[in-house]
This record gives sequence, C-alpha cells and structure tokens, in this order.
Amino acid sequence: MHPRIPVTVLGATGVVGQRFVRRLSHHPWFAVRHLCASDRNAGKRYRDACDWRLRGEPWGGLGEQVLAPASVGDAFAPVVFSALDSAPARELEPEFAAAGAWVFSNASAFRMADDVPLLVPEVNPDHLALVARQRRERGWRGAIVCNPNCTATVLVTALAPLHATFGVEAVFMTSMQAASGAGYPGVASLDLLGNVIPFIRGEEEKVEEETRKLLGRLTGERIEPAALAISAACNRVPVVDGHHETVSVRLAGDPSLAAVRAALAGWRGEPQRLALPSAPAAPLVVHDADDRPQARLDLDDTDGMAVHVGRLRPCPLLGLKLALLGHNAERGAAGASLLNAELARARGLLAAAVAADPHRPR
Amino acid sequence: MHPRIPVTVLGATGVVGQRFVRRLSHHPWFAVRHLCASDRNAGKRYRDACDWRLRGEPWGGLGEQVLAPASVGDAFAPVVFSALDSAPARELEPEFAAAGAWVFSNASAFRMADDVPLLVPEVNPDHLALVARQRRERGWRGAIVCNPNCTATVLVTALAPLHATFGVEAVFMTSMQAASGAGYPGVASLDLLGNVIPFIRGEEEKVEEETRKLLGRLTGERIEPAALAISAACNRVPVVDGHHETVSVRLAGDPSLAAVRAALAGWRGEPQRLALPSAPAAPLVVHDADDRPQARLDLDDTDGMAVHVGRLRPCPLLGLKLALLGHNAERGAAGASLLNAELARARGLLAAAVAADPHRPR
Amino acid sequence: MHPRIPVTVLGATGVVGQRFVRRLSHHPWFAVRHLCASDRNAGKRYRDACDWRLRGEPWGGLGEQVLAPASVGDAFAPVVFSALDSAPARELEPEFAAAGAWVFSNASAFRMADDVPLLVPEVNPDHLALVARQRRERGWRGAIVCNPNCTATVLVTALAPLHATFGVEAVFMTSMQAASGAGYPGVASLDLLGNVIPFIRGEEEKVEEETRKLLGRLTGERIEPAALAISAACNRVPVVDGHHETVSVRLAGDPSLAAVRAALAGWRGEPQRLALPSAPAAPLVVHDADDRPQARLDLDDTDGMAVHVGRLRPCPLLGLKLALLGHNAERGAAGASLLNAELARARGLLAAAVAADPHRPR
Amino acid sequence: MHPRIPVTVLGATGVVGQRFVRRLSHHPWFAVRHLCASDRNAGKRYRDACDWRLRGEPWGGLGEQVLAPASVGDAFAPVVFSALDSAPARELEPEFAAAGAWVFSNASAFRMADDVPLLVPEVNPDHLALVARQRRERGWRGAIVCNPNCTATVLVTALAPLHATFGVEAVFMTSMQAASGAGYPGVASLDLLGNVIPFIRGEEEKVEEETRKLLGRLTGERIEPAALAISAACNRVPVVDGHHETVSVRLAGDPSLAAVRAALAGWRGEPQRLALPSAPAAPLVVHDADDRPQARLDLDDTDGMAVHVGRLRPCPLLGLKLALLGHNAERGAAGASLLNAELARARGLLAAAVAADPHRPR
Repeated sequence: MHPRIPVTVLGATGVVGQRFVRRLSHHPWFAVRHLCASDRNAGKRYRDACDWRLRGEPWGGLGEQVLAPASVGDAFAPVVFSALDSAPARELEPEFAAAGAWVFSNASAFRMADDVPLLVPEVNPDHLALVARQRRERGWRGAIVCNPNCTATVLVTALAPLHATFGVEAVFMTSMQAASGAGYPGVASLDLLGNVIPFIRGEEEKVEEETRKLLGRLTGERIEPAALAISAACNRVPVVDGHHETVSVRLAGDPSLAAVRAALAGWRGEPQRLALPSAPAAPLVVHDADDRPQARLDLDDTDGMAVHVGRLRPCPLLGLKLALLGHNAERGAAGASLLNAELARARGLLAAAVAADPHRPR
Repeated sequence: MHPRIPVTVLGATGVVGQRFVRRLSHHPWFAVRHLCASDRNAGKRYRDACDWRLRGEPWGGLGEQVLAPASVGDAFAPVVFSALDSAPARELEPEFAAAGAWVFSNASAFRMADDVPLLVPEVNPDHLALVARQRRERGWRGAIVCNPNCTATVLVTALAPLHATFGVEAVFMTSMQAASGAGYPGVASLDLLGNVIPFIRGEEEKVEEETRKLLGRLTGERIEPAALAISAACNRVPVVDGHHETVSVRLAGDPSLAAVRAALAGWRGEPQRLALPSAPAAPLVVHDADDRPQARLDLDDTDGMAVHVGRLRPCPLLGLKLALLGHNAERGAAGASLLNAELARARGLLAAAVAADPHRPR
Repeated sequence: MHPRIPVTVLGATGVVGQRFVRRLSHHPWFAVRHLCASDRNAGKRYRDACDWRLRGEPWGGLGEQVLAPASVGDAFAPVVFSALDSAPARELEPEFAAAGAWVFSNASAFRMADDVPLLVPEVNPDHLALVARQRRERGWRGAIVCNPNCTATVLVTALAPLHATFGVEAVFMTSMQAASGAGYPGVASLDLLGNVIPFIRGEEEKVEEETRKLLGRLTGERIEPAALAISAACNRVPVVDGHHETVSVRLAGDPSLAAVRAALAGWRGEPQRLALPSAPAAPLVVHDADDRPQARLDLDDTDGMAVHVGRLRPCPLLGLKLALLGHNAERGAAGASLLNAELARARGLLAAAVAADPHRPR
Repeated sequence: MHPRIPVTVLGATGVVGQRFVRRLSHHPWFAVRHLCASDRNAGKRYRDACDWRLRGEPWGGLGEQVLAPASVGDAFAPVVFSALDSAPARELEPEFAAAGAWVFSNASAFRMADDVPLLVPEVNPDHLALVARQRRERGWRGAIVCNPNCTATVLVTALAPLHATFGVEAVFMTSMQAASGAGYPGVASLDLLGNVIPFIRGEEEKVEEETRKLLGRLTGERIEPAALAISAACNRVPVVDGHHETVSVRLAGDPSLAAVRAALAGWRGEPQRLALPSAPAAPLVVHDADDRPQARLDLDDTDGMAVHVGRLRPCPLLGLKLALLGHNAERGAAGASLLNAELARARGLLAAAVAADPHRPR
C-alpha cells in the first residue's frame, strides 16, 4: 500500500471544483493537499468561501481547510486538478507544470495545443505520449493533460468504438445541454425556465475540432486529426445535469445495426482493463427501450461515468442515428480529469513527480 | 359584406379544438354553428364539458353552446374543422366530406393519401388542385384538406423559399418539441420536468414523408414527392408551447449566407398577397441575434402564425445551418387548418358548398 | 386634448424598466423624454445597452433613443418613473424631487418614510395627501410616491375590501414567488429548476410592515399603521412571472363566505371610478373553480393589472382561507407606479410641475 | 440469523410500489414472495408490466418475477405492503388481514378508522396497541397498520418533539408539493410546467385530521385526538420529489428559539433506539443556513428518511415559524410503511403470523 499522492485543486469553489473535491475526498490514490480559489478567497476556510451545491457530505469533509493562494509557491503538489476558467488557466497551469506538477485540466486553454494530450482514457490513451514532446520543448518538469469539452466527451465516447471497428466518415450532432454545463450562477432562470436557448458561445467549434483531435492518430510526436466531417448544433435546455445529444453517423462499410450495437456494447478500454478506481464497468451503456436514455432515469448510474446510448436506428442520410446522454459535470469534467490522472498513475508516469515533491514527507 | 360561413368544429374540447374555437370566435369569414365532442359529452354545455386551458375569453364566448353529436345528421356545416385523433378522423371526416362539407383537418389520417392536399398555403397552394380528383374518384360533394404535422410545418415553412430559390437537396433536422404537441393530458410531469425524452412515436417518419410531399411537384393530378434526402430526430423538452428545431441543409449551387438570408426574409406567399385574415405579414421572421429564436421571447409574435429563423451559419457537412421555432398549436395546428380554409374561400372554392348548405337561411 | 406629459425612466434597461418603457410607448397621458441607465451605458442607444426580454415591439419602439446620464441636469422631466435598486434610489430620487419632479418609484428606499405615500390607488388613495407634508418639510418642489413590494401589493389588494367592509384582524400569508421578482439575471437556473427556495432576503419584513402602512389610517399628516397582526413566509418557485399566495384571515364579525365573496367581487376603487388608463375593470377577479387562480391560465388577463382571488373557504384557525395570484412585474411593479402617476394626474397634482418644466415647449 | 420474512407487495407497478420493491430488494429482514398488480397485469413478468421509473437496478432485480393476482388465495404472505389506491385498498386489505397477514398500508382507506393505528414510529409507537382491539373486534388474525398522508408525515415529524417538549396549540401549514405525490401519470406537464396549482383534492382535510390523530393520546384502546387547532393550504409546484412546507406554530410556554432548536435537533425516537434498518440516524435534520432546506440539495440525504427543518424564526402571530422538507415518496410513503413493519417486527408482533404462514418452509 503506497501513500496517497498529494494533489492541489485549482478553482475549488466552483461547480466543477466541488465535484473534484467530492471525488477526491475518498479516493484510494490521491489526497487533497491544497484547495485554491481566487485571491479574494485565499485565507478563508473552504466552508466559508464555498457555497456547497452538491449532495453528499458538505465540502467533502474539508470545510475547515484554509484556501491557499493559487500559486506554485503557496500551493504546489505533484498532481494538480484544474477547474479554472480559460483565462487564469492559460496563466497558472504552465507555472505549475514548469515547477514539476502534472496538471490535469478541465479548462479549454491548452486543449488544442499541438503538444498537449487531449485525453479520454478509453478513447485515445496513446495520446499521452505527447507529454514527452511537451516537456522537452517547453522545458517543463511536469506536464499538462487536458480532458475535452463536456459535449465533445459524450460524443467521442460513443464514436470511438465505431471509429475503431468500422471507421467514422461523417457526423451530425445536435446537443441539448444542461444548466450545470454553464457553471454557477451560469444561466439565469428567467432565460431557461420553460425555454430553449439555441446558442452556446464557442461550443460548436469546440465539439468539431476536439472530436477530430480525439479520434486522431498519433504519428511520431504529433496528432493527425481524424479526417471525418462533423457538424454540431448546440442548445441549452432546462435540465439541471446531463447533456443529451442526437447523432447521425456515416460509417465505412455500412454495417448492420446489430454489428453497431455489438461494437458499442462490447467495447472496453484501458481504464476497464486496468480497473482504474473511477472507471465504469463499461464506458457505454446501451439501451434498447424506445425512449431512453433520459437524464431523469439514467444519469446517475455508474456515478455519472458511463455514457448512455440508445435509439440505434437507420438514418436516411448517413446510415445510422442514435441518441446519447452523458453527465456533463462528471464524465464531462471532474471525473474526466480524475480518470486521466488515474491512467497516468497506472502507467507509472507520476512516480518521478512524486519523488521530486519538495514537500514530500520523508 | 357576405354573411359568415357556418362551420363545425370536431374535437372541440381538446387542446387544438379550443384553439379553433378561440380563433373562430372573432373571425371575419367563419362563424361556429356546431361544436362536437365525444359521445359522452354530447348534450352538455361547452363550458361543462371543456376544461378551458387557454388565455383570453373562456370558451371563446361559446360556453353556453350545447355540444352536438359528431355526426353529419346532427352537426353538418359546409365547412368543418377537425381536431380529431387519427382513428375517429379516419371514420368521421369522409362522412362529412361525402355529405358536402369541406373538411380542414389537423389529423394525420389522410395526410399521405394520394388525392388529399397536404397544404401550407405559403408553400404549396397549387396542391389544392388535388381536390378535384379526390371528389371525382371518391364521389364526394365536399373534400378533405389536411395540414401537416406541427414539426413538419415549421421545417417546411423555412425550407420552401430555399427550395424555390436554390433547390434543397438534403436536410437534417433535430426537434426539441413542446409539451402541448402531445395534447392533454399528454406527457406526465414526472416524465418531463427537468428532462429530455428522446422519442416521440411516429414523429420522425411523419416529418420525413410529409416534408417530401409538401415540397413535391403537382403533375397532372398527382404529387411527385421532392427528391430531397431528409433525416429527422425528435425530442420532447420541458417547454409548454413552441417547437425548436436545429436544421442543416444542402442547397444546390452553394449560395452565400447573404443570399440565403435574402431568400428567407423576402419571401411572401399567397396568404400574404391575398391578405388572408390569419396570415402573418411575412411567413418567416429572420433573427440576427446569436441566441434567437427562443420560445420565451418570440413565440407569441404574429399570433403564433410566423415561423422564426435564426443562426444562419455554415454547416461543415451540408453547407447551411439554421435554428427554427414555430408555434406547434397555432401555425402547426389550429391556425394551419384555418389558414387553409381561408385560402380555399379566397379562391372561391367554398361557394358551392355554402350555396348547397341545407340549413342555409334563405 | 392636452399634450402628453414628458417623463424620465430611471433604470430603463432592467426587467422593470423595460416594462415601464413598454407601457409608456403607447400611453395616452405620458410620453418618454429621457431613458436613463447606469453611467457605463449613458450615451449608448437603448437597443445597444438593453437586452430586451419582453414580448411585443422590442425596446417599445425606442431602440434608437440615446440613454441619458441619470442626473437632474441631463435627464429632468416633470414626471419620473424609477426602477432603480434601493441604493441608487436613495440618492437619486430626492435630487429629482427637489428639482421639481414627481417621482413614482418602485424602489424600496423611501417606502416606509413617514412622509412618503406608499400607494395602491384602489386601496389608499387618500394617502397621497402626505405629499404636502413631504414637500413642506423637505423643501422639495416635487415629490416621491412609492408603490409597495410586489408581494405586499397582491396581498393588500385582496385585503383592502375585506378591511373596509369587515375589518381585518390577523393575516397569515405564504408566498410562492416567480423568478422575475428577483430581477435579471436574478436567480440562477441551477438553483431554481425543479426546486423551491424557502427564503427571499428582506421580503417577509417588507410584506409585514408595508401591509400595515397601506391599510393604515391617515390622521392629520401621518399614517397610523393598521393594528392587524400579520405573518409572512416567502418562497421562490420555478415560475417565470406571477406570485401565488395562500392566505388566512381573521375578519371582525365572522362574516359568511358569501358576504366575503360579495365584498371582493363588488369592490371598485378610485382608478375604476376615474377610468384611469391602466386600471383594470375591477381590481379583483374572483374565481369559483377549485383549482384557480393559476399563473399559466390567469396571469395575463387585464394586462396583468388585476389581482386574482380563489378558493374562498373556511380556515379552522382564522376563519377565512383564500388563494391569490398577481403579476409581480406589472401590478406589482411597473404598472403600479404608472397607476399611481395616473391617479396623481387625474387629481390635478401634476399640473404645476408640468407648467414649471424648464424644457417645456412654449 | 433468522430467515427473512416473506412479504407481498400490492400495487407493485406504481410509483410507490416500485419504491417498495427497491427498498425490499436488499432488506435484511424481509424478502419479496409475491408482487401483485391489477388483474390485467397478473401473469405477466414484472419487467413487462412495470415501466420502471427509478434510479438503481431496474425492477429491483425482480424483473423476471411473474405478477400474482391480488388475492389471498394467490398471493398470501404474513406481511403485506400496500401501495393500492383507496378503493381497492378498502376491499383487499381486510381480506389479507382476516387471513392472518399484517398489512402495512400507504392507502388512505383505513387511516382514520378508530381501531387502526396511524403510525409514524418516532411519533406515536404506542398507537400500535390499537391492533389488539382491531383484531378482537373484527375477528382478524392479522392486522392493518397505516402510515399517514405524505404531507401530514412531514409536518407531524417536526411537530412531535415540539408537542412532547412544549405542547403544540395551533398550527398553520402551507405545502408546496412535488409531482410524484400525485402518482403516475399524475399531473399533466401542461398543467405543471412553470406553474403553481393551488389545490389538491382532499389533501387539506387529510393533513388536518391525520395530524390530530397522530399527535393524539392513547387512552385505553382509543385515540384521543390532540386538541390543537390546525389549518392547511396545499399547492402543487413543479418539483419532481420532495414536499416543502412553511409552518407557523404556537407552543405552550413560549419557549426560546434556542430551546426549540434543541428540542428538534436532539430528538430521537424508538426507531433510532432500536436501530431499525430503515431508520435515519435522527428523524430531523436541522439546518441553520438561511435558505435551507431545499429539495435540490437536501432531499436524498439519509435515503429520503429524515425530515429537514430550517429557518427557525419568530412568528408575529403564533410565535414560531419554520420551513420543512421531506421526501413524499420515501418517508411519506414506501419508507414509512416499511419502517412501520420494522417496528412491528422489532417488538415481536410479527412472529405469530410468520409461524402460522401456511406456505412456510419447514
């Protein structure tokens, strides 16, 4: 039994930060060393600075912990989870990586950088190899590893086994996204109650470009984006948690629905083979009932870590239609970063950083 | 000034029937003669049989009227508006048509019949010509004229000027449909509150086949369906009224967004040229703000009779993406049938039926 | 036909400010001279500074008008409508009043001041007499007249005829308040979707003290608060517009339900007698159906200016129970201030201010 | 380790029936023998007859079980849980009780019968003694034990320690009740989305009379209802699960808020002393934050078995105001019946019925 690896959470008071803290509060491999928030909150107790919005033990049992300033000097740990917004992420994450930390980030700042792995462990674990180039070229002792946008995560998790088995050529995706995807306070209730907002700034572009990178091929030390054509339309709907997506796909070879179903249901990835602590038994849950998946009924299974697929049926244009559902704030955010860290740890990538940790108890 | 044409409303107590009554209560051309409901309600006053669910004057001022049995003998009028479900429509509408009535129906029973016009007056007014064949072959003195499914109506109203101007080759449509589209009581609140239901029985098939018929070409006395490829995915969302749709379209000749916008915004149809009483000033309202149209803000303009278009932007797959909104229960149901009747009257088609009305005051 | 009185709207871009503008855009007696917003928006066009959230003509047709700084020098008019928050109201409203304007305010800043009328025109029109003392003691050429908190307005409108007819001795009120009562952005959708928030800061205190002042007696130049005991519990519910209230009342003399119903339904106030432009035909609409009033069905009748009363029934504790509904943003805010101004104009109180208007066209 | 007691669930396919099945699927003391539904479903597999609406393992793992007809001959067990509607409960429950079963019923049919315990185990465990009279007078070998209406349950659980410590003299209660309290399909989404319905048939009467019986005193073999005055106003709000209540109470002796808080927070009942399997650690969770309890944040704690209390503050009329929240379908329905059965078992009351079970394995 190894001691747990100390971690820092950046942006610990927000919607995603709270989910990091909750997941870490009983994690077998990681233990919170520092919780950081914005400067005006540093020095306060977590319970006083954070309006806890989740079920379960408030503040993950860390309500008395004093928030540290978000700086390497004050809050270093060999592993960092970042729930920062894009602008502060762009500044702070490199500082921690340069100082030797492995930063597992939910922010969008570095997702599309050539030398940064954009990672879903079941989908493209080999992309982790980019880290070697990243560290060499940037002169960092640590690294940054990103998880994708929540909407892209749900989509790519369903596409990955289809791409591996048949080859995905074209994709249409319309999302119906939950309020929690916009953070807190996020969308005003006056705008969302009983309404649909057919626009989420920057979301469609992220889904389109991140999906191609995620399904891309690692060639030497770069990612060749997948050649697939993809079009996304993103909407906000009055749902608290859980992004629904309707998807049409053109697959090479025009496989049968049965073959598609088998490819989806039978798929297991490296997190399943390694039995990572946050990995669901299978990355996809396939539903056969006409009217599933639904956030009300399916979202909380597997702790929000599986993506749900249903309504497999022919598409007159592209061949295959399906309906998806995934937990935007778990598999699409906090759980995603954590699973990335678990993969890195299981591959032994974190050992050197832990050994070099200046605050390591010896 | 002609006297108003007497009309019968079949299914007057339901969600759509109430909207017929409200629209007819102050109509310049039509006046309610009979309100019909199911057998168990015949003989009751409208106010006692109908749980009025609309704003405005309750029961459209007709609360004291006694409901007639839904039969030709008891409830004939030269014009009939049908808000029936499909099964009773299949039985009753032909009886009224055979007896000489023009039946303007919101039911799905006869929409796809070869000799029945499926009509949106701005889109395919020439399809009314099918009535001649219908009457000849069926030996009816009256006729049945259908309006399409609410979701198809919204879609085809936006496609029509694009098809006329450029030619529509392929269409993707994902709907986010309101609760009122399922009638009353319709969807249980336990199923819909804070949830998305990714399935509406039969809806996708209706949208696909009705759209092709609506955009089809009248050749002799039959409709050649439009050759376009179309794929629909339909969802129920927690909105009271108003169907949102995200759409991608491939147009012949790859026109610019400016040309598309001009075609949409400048379009006027026969209802506008004829200034029909229920016609909006323009069939389409084009929005330039990023986040429009929205049911909350846009639905009730034009009394629910215009379709709203927004978010014109390039689609990586098909060339053009847009967002639509239309009032499912007005432009997609009661208002649709009424506008069809107005077109028929303006073209002089109803005159013979009115003259032959056995109950006509002389 | 007199020329319309020029008015200034303070806080024109907010939820209540927009409703002022919409109501004023076609008002027979008042015409907008200045629209004011916060300093950072002064100099912008109204359409560019204001995210219009209402149905009907955007920006009330005033989208091109340039916003003035909120100061007497830049934005004086003989009548001012204030949709300011409490802090700026405390500072700005006296400046305008001192300069000669009649300020009709929806803000809470001066509601409980001894010399300021807290006015619902049907309830306590005689309280307007306080203005004489206010002007004398403060040395103002103008005046401030307040309307009450939205929740108190709904309650007091139902209590007033009961108090006049029987005498109200004790009142219990539990509110279920709509999102729009919190302004924009107001309550986060994450907090309100599918939830009840059993707390609204300061609301219960306002309801309790304002109700006593509103039902108080004018004695000389002061208001003797009504002696009634009152207890309020306020909740936020996921409704867009419309405050529901459940109320129990103890009346002197224990009148019958029929007598209570007659007192409510038959009540007319000075706005009805004077036929003020914004006055509903009757201040109260009494519902006899078991399950009314409801925001969905009843709110928009009478342009949101009537209060709806239903479910008259015995209360085991206080004698009488009832259910109320009123439009928080119309009768409870913008419409309230406007009706106050109409009363003042009808009584001839505004004539001197109009005559002294330095910008008056002559 | 004793074998688990076989039980029958009546009404197993409904909203409450499903919760019974889920709770029983892993219960240490009880095991499902029969699942019963309406006649048209008897003979079907549970998975085919029941549209499972809950999170967790579908059909509680009993999807393959064949539904039995709801009769003593086909579905006897020594313990019966009844999720029936009132009319079938009135007929079926006595048949099972006569045949020797202990029927723990969520139905309202027998709640107010003189010889039937209306039981909340923390509140009035001594009322179980009524069973002796019930069996003697009715000649039953078994018994019927009822749990109260969900709204009354939440209220009485908060009142009980106040009544025991100080004496409750008068109570005002306004409820804001969740959709699931109306069963399935229950309230139409068209009625409830973004709305409040100020009426629930029969609910106010149930709350008033059941509360008095629950807090009543057992004298000999009858219950003397508590003398307190109580007034209830019941509303339906767009929340899925969880009834909120605002309450005002007059207590004898006018205790301080601190004394009230201590009485509430320190209260433990017999289920806690006996450590019954479904008992929460404490029957009440006291919240000190201004804006709690809320269904979104608090409902699922303690598996829905604790009642949440917050906003302790003075009431100008009755002395004490508070806000309550409880899970209508767990503590207010399925969990309530189950806790009643656990109490009966812990007191040894079920042993004879189990011994006499004709189908007992020997």
